[in-house]
Amino acid sequence: MATHRLDESAAGVYIICATPFTDSGELDLDSATRLIDFYIDKGVTGITILGMMGEALKLTPDEAESFLTTVLKHVDGRVPIVVGVSNAGIDNLASLAKISMDNGAAGLMIAPANGLGTDEKIYRYFCQVFDALGDRVPVAYQDYPLSTRSETSVTVFLKLVTEFDQLVMLKHEDWPGLGKVTQVRQMSLEQGVRRVSILAGNGGLYLPQELQRGVDGAMTGFAFPEMLVEVVRLHRAGEIDKAEDLFDAYLPIVRHEQQPGFGLALRKEILHRRGAIASSKVRAPGATLTATDHDELTRLLSRVERNVREL
Amino acid sequence: MATHRLDESAAGVYIICATPFTDSGELDLDSATRLIDFYIDKGVTGITILGMMGEALKLTPDEAESFLTTVLKHVDGRVPIVVGVSNAGIDNLASLAKISMDNGAAGLMIAPANGLGTDEKIYRYFCQVFDALGDRVPVAYQDYPLSTRSETSVTVFLKLVTEFDQLVMLKHEDWPGLGKVTQVRQMSLEQGVRRVSILAGNGGLYLPQELQRGVDGAMTGFAFPEMLVEVVRLHRAGEIDKAEDLFDAYLPIVRHEQQPGFGLALRKEILHRRGAIASSKVRAPGATLTATDHDELTRLLSRVERNVREL
Amino acid sequence: MATHRLDESAAGVYIICATPFTDSGELDLDSATRLIDFYIDKGVTGITILGMMGEALKLTPDEAESFLTTVLKHVDGRVPIVVGVSNAGIDNLASLAKISMDNGAAGLMIAPANGLGTDEKIYRYFCQVFDALGDRVPVAYQDYPLSTRSETSVTVFLKLVTEFDQLVMLKHEDWPGLGKVTQVRQMSLEQGVRRVSILAGNGGLYLPQELQRGVDGAMTGFAFPEMLVEVVRLHRAGEIDKAEDLFDAYLPIVRHEQQPGFGLALRKEILHRRGAIASSKVRAPGATLTATDHDELTRLLSRVERNVREL
Amino acid sequence: MATHRLDESAAGVYIICATPFTDSGELDLDSATRLIDFYIDKGVTGITILGMMGEALKLTPDEAESFLTTVLKHVDGRVPIVVGVSNAGIDNLASLAKISMDNGAAGLMIAPANGLGTDEKIYRYFCQVFDALGDRVPVAYQDYPLSTRSETSVTVFLKLVTEFDQLVMLKHEDWPGLGKVTQVRQMSLEQGVRRVSILAGNGGLYLPQELQRGVDGAMTGFAFPEMLVEVVRLHRAGEIDKAEDLFDAYLPIVRHEQQPGFGLALRKEILHRRGAIASSKVRAPGATLTATDHDELTRLLSRVERNVREL
Repeated sequence: MATHRLDESAAGVYIICATPFTDSGELDLDSATRLIDFYIDKGVTGITILGMMGEALKLTPDEAESFLTTVLKHVDGRVPIVVGVSNAGIDNLASLAKISMDNGAAGLMIAPANGLGTDEKIYRYFCQVFDALGDRVPVAYQDYPLSTRSETSVTVFLKLVTEFDQLVMLKHEDWPGLGKVTQVRQMSLEQGVRRVSILAGNGGLYLPQELQRGVDGAMTGFAFPEMLVEVVRLHRAGEIDKAEDLFDAYLPIVRHEQQPGFGLALRKEILHRRGAIASSKVRAPGATLTATDHDELTRLLSRVERNVREL
Repeated sequence: MATHRLDESAAGVYIICATPFTDSGELDLDSATRLIDFYIDKGVTGITILGMMGEALKLTPDEAESFLTTVLKHVDGRVPIVVGVSNAGIDNLASLAKISMDNGAAGLMIAPANGLGTDEKIYRYFCQVFDALGDRVPVAYQDYPLSTRSETSVTVFLKLVTEFDQLVMLKHEDWPGLGKVTQVRQMSLEQGVRRVSILAGNGGLYLPQELQRGVDGAMTGFAFPEMLVEVVRLHRAGEIDKAEDLFDAYLPIVRHEQQPGFGLALRKEILHRRGAIASSKVRAPGATLTATDHDELTRLLSRVERNVREL
Repeated sequence: MATHRLDESAAGVYIICATPFTDSGELDLDSATRLIDFYIDKGVTGITILGMMGEALKLTPDEAESFLTTVLKHVDGRVPIVVGVSNAGIDNLASLAKISMDNGAAGLMIAPANGLGTDEKIYRYFCQVFDALGDRVPVAYQDYPLSTRSETSVTVFLKLVTEFDQLVMLKHEDWPGLGKVTQVRQMSLEQGVRRVSILAGNGGLYLPQELQRGVDGAMTGFAFPEMLVEVVRLHRAGEIDKAEDLFDAYLPIVRHEQQPGFGLALRKEILHRRGAIASSKVRAPGATLTATDHDELTRLLSRVERNVREL
Repeated sequence: MATHRLDESAAGVYIICATPFTDSGELDLDSATRLIDFYIDKGVTGITILGMMGEALKLTPDEAESFLTTVLKHVDGRVPIVVGVSNAGIDNLASLAKISMDNGAAGLMIAPANGLGTDEKIYRYFCQVFDALGDRVPVAYQDYPLSTRSETSVTVFLKLVTEFDQLVMLKHEDWPGLGKVTQVRQMSLEQGVRRVSILAGNGGLYLPQELQRGVDGAMTGFAFPEMLVEVVRLHRAGEIDKAEDLFDAYLPIVRHEQQPGFGLALRKEILHRRGAIASSKVRAPGATLTATDHDELTRLLSRVERNVREL
């Protein structure tokens, strides 16, 4: 079992792991381990499971636990595993958190509850969460208002960082959010607040810009993890233009995957075509691809292939 | 075990059952059975468990199953039990549905998934749900847009009634929604659509008006179920004014309980004061009452007591 | 022209004034002056025009200005007039503000722009607004998240009060919001923040409770302003029970008017029946009453009449 | 004055026109005419003014009218002008519509009112709108749920097309929305519904895919209109790959401009740098660019320039 612990130094690419199902909708643990190997083979630094794009809320708790333990056992410490545990009830959240950490997870990813409309509500929610988790469990804060309808100000985020040592990362996917990255970095410096890791989410749509503004990598799903890995590596090696050239070669697909809801069906189809999972099935309620969607994707993929060849 | 089956003739009061916890937040099954007896003693026709006001999403699945089986066993067929099974994933929904029906539930309560913005999306969602459930499981449609952000038009509701025999009830809690009750009744008649049961939700805030417009009773929580029961009984006995006089005597509390989120803490406190449950605990994230809130409630309750005495 | 200026001592009832139209939808200035006299005759302390329930956004600017100047001239200083100037553009807001104050308004009512999701965004918005208005124009802050989707924390409200002297009032209509009244009062005291006026909105649905928690009156529409006036008067005279008895007698109508959107059509119909305006017309898009709605209202009104007689 | 009339054959690029202000926020009519010439010079087919990205709601009606008449006079029939007239009140909408058509506009752009949650509500709203406009005014339907929170199903759109001859265009900016384009085209054919023009909105983010699925062009803002024009031209000439190559060269900027709210500040800054307008000012409330934002934009622009050179 793993001994990684997520901390403020986290960097690189934590891929948001899809959850594979069979064509008939059963949890497909064979594909899960194959997908994990695929991700590790592509060079990811870590893997985040049971996130929104992992269809976590569509799994029964037994399935979630089964997926979780299978993945953690299969990874066997090769890379750190972060587990998404956001839940409508804090007891449920704490319960999945315990199972995760007991099985060797490196940390948790938690988004604010839905529809928290003020800084106070955000703050109180996370006080309750951290209180339920205890202070030894590392947490990545998922800031994704398009989905949660809860916006997090830089002020309240830094207040939480100041008060809770276990908050070690910002998974940044506010939109627009480039200015927020800069503000978190600047205000941390000015106020002497502990520097946390920031990883870019949002499908990586603005990854080059975010790297230039101070994020440490990406925590997002994309069907070509090797692109994310290489973009982050090049950027850190100072090859900023080369990083962005590579990113731009894939941008048509990044953008295509970025369609809310529908994008997950596309991502799973690409993973399927690449041999990483047996079926592109998305559980209900979820999108399915038409013949037109398939042809369109084929065309986009071949164009990106050409782009990459020509780099 | 029960043999009731929810059908279109359902009428009276189906109380939305609170889920009792201990002060420390553990599921309190002793209080659960006491609360069930309290409800039955007050004359309810049926009981709906694991609804939104039953904090269903804050239970682990094991807790939900434990609560469900305890309640169904304890009720032992005295009244029909409806189980709320709304879930972000249709597989999860179907799984809880199976457990419920296998244990003797009379039917299910299901709301549309969150944020479905067109008639087509509502329609397709319920096609998937009914497909997953099969055609033998009676369903009450929870129409509660304030919470789900999914509005259901009369047109699409009647289309679903026409196509799916297992859809036997509308739990009506759109707001404003008085006109909708009238429209469902009128358009059903005009179009020859099967007449389903309509039970009023929304804390009963407009119950007298809804009864006069053709609802068959209430499916809602209120800490004085005997009022709901008697109002529906009087109305059906033709004593419309007397029904409304009784309702109005309680209206200050009905309105007080109708505060979103906060109302549940008030309801549980009243149930606690009435001896129906051991603790008024609401699980996190949830409201707690301040001393001012307690005093205010005490005052409101004593005024309502007086109102009722003076009727 | 008037010389009132809204300030922190504002108390009593500022009625939210409906905007009368003819049956064909023309602005009806004759009814406007009749309605103003009706309100003053019922004892209101002040009048707020061009609010959300005044269908402000459905008027052309010329109509708004014409309504505004007619009302201010007709009132002729008998009571203070507050003008709702919320607008998607701050320049527009400032322009209507100037016209209002130049014509003798006592102050402005302003809600945060729609969908501001953090304290910082609320704060920055009002900094821009106050900057555009200058420091001599008294402002009532309309806190109505159900409509604006912008929640205001007590913290940010008190920060604005501290920094901007012209912010003299909170029109309180958050829901649930009873705790907020108490918090504003307590935190003001604890932090030595200037005490502002708080007037209850939200149709007055919780007026007795809000008075007991420290609001200074009501700023809301209700078709029986005399009830609001007398409830506030009795409360301030220490006759708390009597105040609440009177309120409860009207509560069935208060609740009936509280239906979002639809309630305005009911309110205008009651004002029409009471002879205050010539037509109950609501401009498109807006609700109209069916025969059933009319009968239901008639019944509710006669019951309230009886309630009041029996007090 | 112009004699164009928008009809179902509309195709090509209708650019969404920015509204220029001076640095101090005054309406800048000199820049307006310069900008119009810039757009026409870049080959646009038509121009849409007073849309959401034209900050229409931040203009006073006098400013809107002044901008409108200035633009229409200056264009002098060279290209058709569509005017955005969406408004919270239908009377206001009709009033601006009349001014627009009287001054030579080719048609109107209208979005559903905010927050209409069912097909029935959408349908009734547009019945009221078309009733107010009369049947001689051509209308483009703006389908932009991310902003309006009103989703339009294909069913209700085709019903409106069937019933109202003046509905001649769909400005398509639902997201995800590629499937919708295909559905509108397919269902129109199957049901024998009149074929309307569909122009892609949403900043053009999926323009190549939309063209391949049957849109007739674009109605959107982008600071390089010549790209949109050429992509549509190439596509129609059958040079699909070349069209997409050109598009992809600009995609990093298309994506950058696509940041909600913030994107408008970027777009105006680019237009300013290109000499089309005197100031990049966005009216309050609105975004401003930091030094970091400026540098980032400079870098992105120079990269796109290189991309285009290398095509």
